[in-house]
Amino acid sequence: MTQLQTLNAYFAEHREAHLNELNEFLRIPSISSLSEHKGDIQHAAEWLADAFKKLNLENISITQTAGHPVVYADWLHAEGKPTILFYGHYDVQPVDPLHLWDSEPFNPTIRDNKLFARGASDDKGQVFMHLKMIEALFATTGTLPVNVKFIYEGEEEIGSPHLPAFVEEHKEKLAADLILISDTGLYGPGKPAVCYGLRGLTGVQIDVRGAKGDLHSGLYGGGVQNAIHALAEILASFRDEHGTIQVEGFYDKVLPLTGEEREAYRALGFDEDSVKEEVGVSELFGEAGYSYLERTWARPTLEVNGVFGGFSGEGIKTVLPAEAGAKITCRLVPNQEPEEIVALLKAHIDKHKPAGVDVTISEFDKGRPFLTPFDHPFIQAAGRSYEKVYNVPTAYTRGGGSIPIVAAFDEILDLPVVLMGFGLSSENFHAPNEHFHLENFDKGLRVLGDYLYEVAALSQS
Amino acid sequence: MTQLQTLNAYFAEHREAHLNELNEFLRIPSISSLSEHKGDIQHAAEWLADAFKKLNLENISITQTAGHPVVYADWLHAEGKPTILFYGHYDVQPVDPLHLWDSEPFNPTIRDNKLFARGASDDKGQVFMHLKMIEALFATTGTLPVNVKFIYEGEEEIGSPHLPAFVEEHKEKLAADLILISDTGLYGPGKPAVCYGLRGLTGVQIDVRGAKGDLHSGLYGGGVQNAIHALAEILASFRDEHGTIQVEGFYDKVLPLTGEEREAYRALGFDEDSVKEEVGVSELFGEAGYSYLERTWARPTLEVNGVFGGFSGEGIKTVLPAEAGAKITCRLVPNQEPEEIVALLKAHIDKHKPAGVDVTISEFDKGRPFLTPFDHPFIQAAGRSYEKVYNVPTAYTRGGGSIPIVAAFDEILDLPVVLMGFGLSSENFHAPNEHFHLENFDKGLRVLGDYLYEVAALSQS
Repeated sequence: MTQLQTLNAYFAEHREAHLNELNEFLRIPSISSLSEHKGDIQHAAEWLADAFKKLNLENISITQTAGHPVVYADWLHAEGKPTILFYGHYDVQPVDPLHLWDSEPFNPTIRDNKLFARGASDDKGQVFMHLKMIEALFATTGTLPVNVKFIYEGEEEIGSPHLPAFVEEHKEKLAADLILISDTGLYGPGKPAVCYGLRGLTGVQIDVRGAKGDLHSGLYGGGVQNAIHALAEILASFRDEHGTIQVEGFYDKVLPLTGEEREAYRALGFDEDSVKEEVGVSELFGEAGYSYLERTWARPTLEVNGVFGGFSGEGIKTVLPAEAGAKITCRLVPNQEPEEIVALLKAHIDKHKPAGVDVTISEFDKGRPFLTPFDHPFIQAAGRSYEKVYNVPTAYTRGGGSIPIVAAFDEILDLPVVLMGFGLSSENFHAPNEHFHLENFDKGLRVLGDYLYEVAALSQS
Repeated sequence: MTQLQTLNAYFAEHREAHLNELNEFLRIPSISSLSEHKGDIQHAAEWLADAFKKLNLENISITQTAGHPVVYADWLHAEGKPTILFYGHYDVQPVDPLHLWDSEPFNPTIRDNKLFARGASDDKGQVFMHLKMIEALFATTGTLPVNVKFIYEGEEEIGSPHLPAFVEEHKEKLAADLILISDTGLYGPGKPAVCYGLRGLTGVQIDVRGAKGDLHSGLYGGGVQNAIHALAEILASFRDEHGTIQVEGFYDKVLPLTGEEREAYRALGFDEDSVKEEVGVSELFGEAGYSYLERTWARPTLEVNGVFGGFSGEGIKTVLPAEAGAKITCRLVPNQEPEEIVALLKAHIDKHKPAGVDVTISEFDKGRPFLTPFDHPFIQAAGRSYEKVYNVPTAYTRGGGSIPIVAAFDEILDLPVVLMGFGLSSENFHAPNEHFHLENFDKGLRVLGDYLYEVAALSQS
């Protein structure tokens, strides 16, 4: 049997046990943005440390930070071989609106060979694949072809505020030849992809305050500024009708797409109609002059993530609201700098502040965009491992999402980053009914296992 | 003793008992817009019917409607004398945001001779004054100088959807010489007012729908329309930067203020700075070219009462929201018609609908504006009663608020409407910490008692 056949057999035999174990992990509601889930975050970190213990990994630690803990482990007995640093996150997004979930977010349920649960795909399911791949290699060969280190954090969904400091502090401990992250997606069903770039992230909350309390819209209406209306004017000022962002200087540092990249994207034959159907809209929308792939992979955005103010209950309440707020995030592309973009947003809001209200701006955590050459040997090796399991050519893509920590790894550890993800864009990350196609769970385990041999082989050539 | 002195003595002697009884009424959380309070609404109606029984009124009834019940009673033994129809409402506004209340909204509390409770001023406190005035006249004279009828409803705060049909059906039973309503305010502390006009009301809820569910802002951001952003563009389109409404045709039927009215308002010497201080803003805001009093009394408005969409919890959620909504109400002035204004709003929204979303509009209940000549004898008599108790000239004003049913009474029963209110604009109707100055409770009881003699005297002249 080839190494891949041996792995196949092992995963087939242990599939049910593996899924049961994954469900345990998914049942922990480790929502990092809500303080009432702090205990669950700790629980998830301990669950991971236990899993490392069962794999007989070494130097296992749960390190408390000013926020949520970082879990570390390693195995460094493949002398002369490269070291892979695995990164992932055990925190998940909030789950509201709850009523739109067909099954409970923290009660994992399999339907049509898809596993439904918050975190199934982003990112607990994929972190779990790292662990089971290691288990399979140990079980079938008694060793590993490369050295491995693991760093799993609990703050990815809130922008990894404390991980850069941790990485900086543990620079030597984390030294490796590459960092492998499984938090991105396939190009499409059955079509693997290696992602060579990601967008960055920055954001602000805008709080508008008019009168000192809500007012009767009859007694004061027409006489005092309305906080919601003022906020709406600020929000509307951010874009033109085509979605082009109107914040002065916003696009100044954007690295333009090269002709080669635009051609490569066109060659993927992406079907925009399939997106319309998938998300249920009659038309797509965005910056004029760019294709859907270009807009979501290589162009920056400004999205309102939430808005609130006044009365939102049943029926009518004739109130003139004193307060209103909105949460806004921007996806950034090279070479936009998060700090600079926040400064531009603040200047824009200041310039567009309507009369009669005060505006407060709070900053969210930031992540820089990232881009790496797609012809790097570790990237190409990843493409080969995918092709052996999926039997089709690997696409080299960019991702519209952000893994804020990627740019920090790039900067602090100076390592090539290899993004080998197994999700599908239809899997509702960050939304109700998040799920993970188990076909890609099964195949991904084998891809990851094979990749360790590919990386080991590179060091011999 | 004069009639007024006799009333004074009676009210002084029974003050504590009256306030205890009022607190009972205020403790019933009769919020008409929230269906979970349906039982409380019924309880408040029964409380009123019991109060009528204790006054030995006749023909007491609680009539169920398709919504909340109407409570009726009368006493018709003042032969040859005019009949006054008293109107009021026993329902109240919702109480959120609860954390801004200094004491619980349904636990009445007196501080600084002000009674704090939801409904203290709007309108349970004032309805209660009608009852106690009748009690005092019976107790001190054994009879009443005029005939009286009472109609108290439970749907005023949701636009009185079922009362016009009730009034139409009971037209003969409700026949009277005038209708007296206590749901407006004094001109200012110590300065009485008789209100000769009110604004009308209409409104819509705008629901914007983009994708079929919330999307990950990294994967889809830049590619699909954002429901909140689309909504913000619609909301911003309603006004220009000065607050002038941009809905085509909105001002077409507005009856312009006469030179005489503008002069009379100027003569009141209204202090705009006092409003700034009262509501806590550094500048007032509204339609250019009109004073604050003109804008709030005699000009129409369009206010966003509430907005919702996406993530509004703690922290950040990088979601591209599929749904967003806003509640909007307009205050109308003669001769704007609610139905016509709704049609104009719909046309405006349709014209300004951004690409990539669907918009649904639902209508709220409507009330027409109202205006009556200020030289009517019943109006002038009201002014005299105020002057006897307050010892200063009565101001003849218009109100910015809406009592939707006033126009219906005007239209169906063809009666002069006399608005004798005792609230103050600083009393936080519809907002946290609603309260009622007990000084005006005490004085108002005497004004109302005196007014019955004034009306009786008019029939002899």
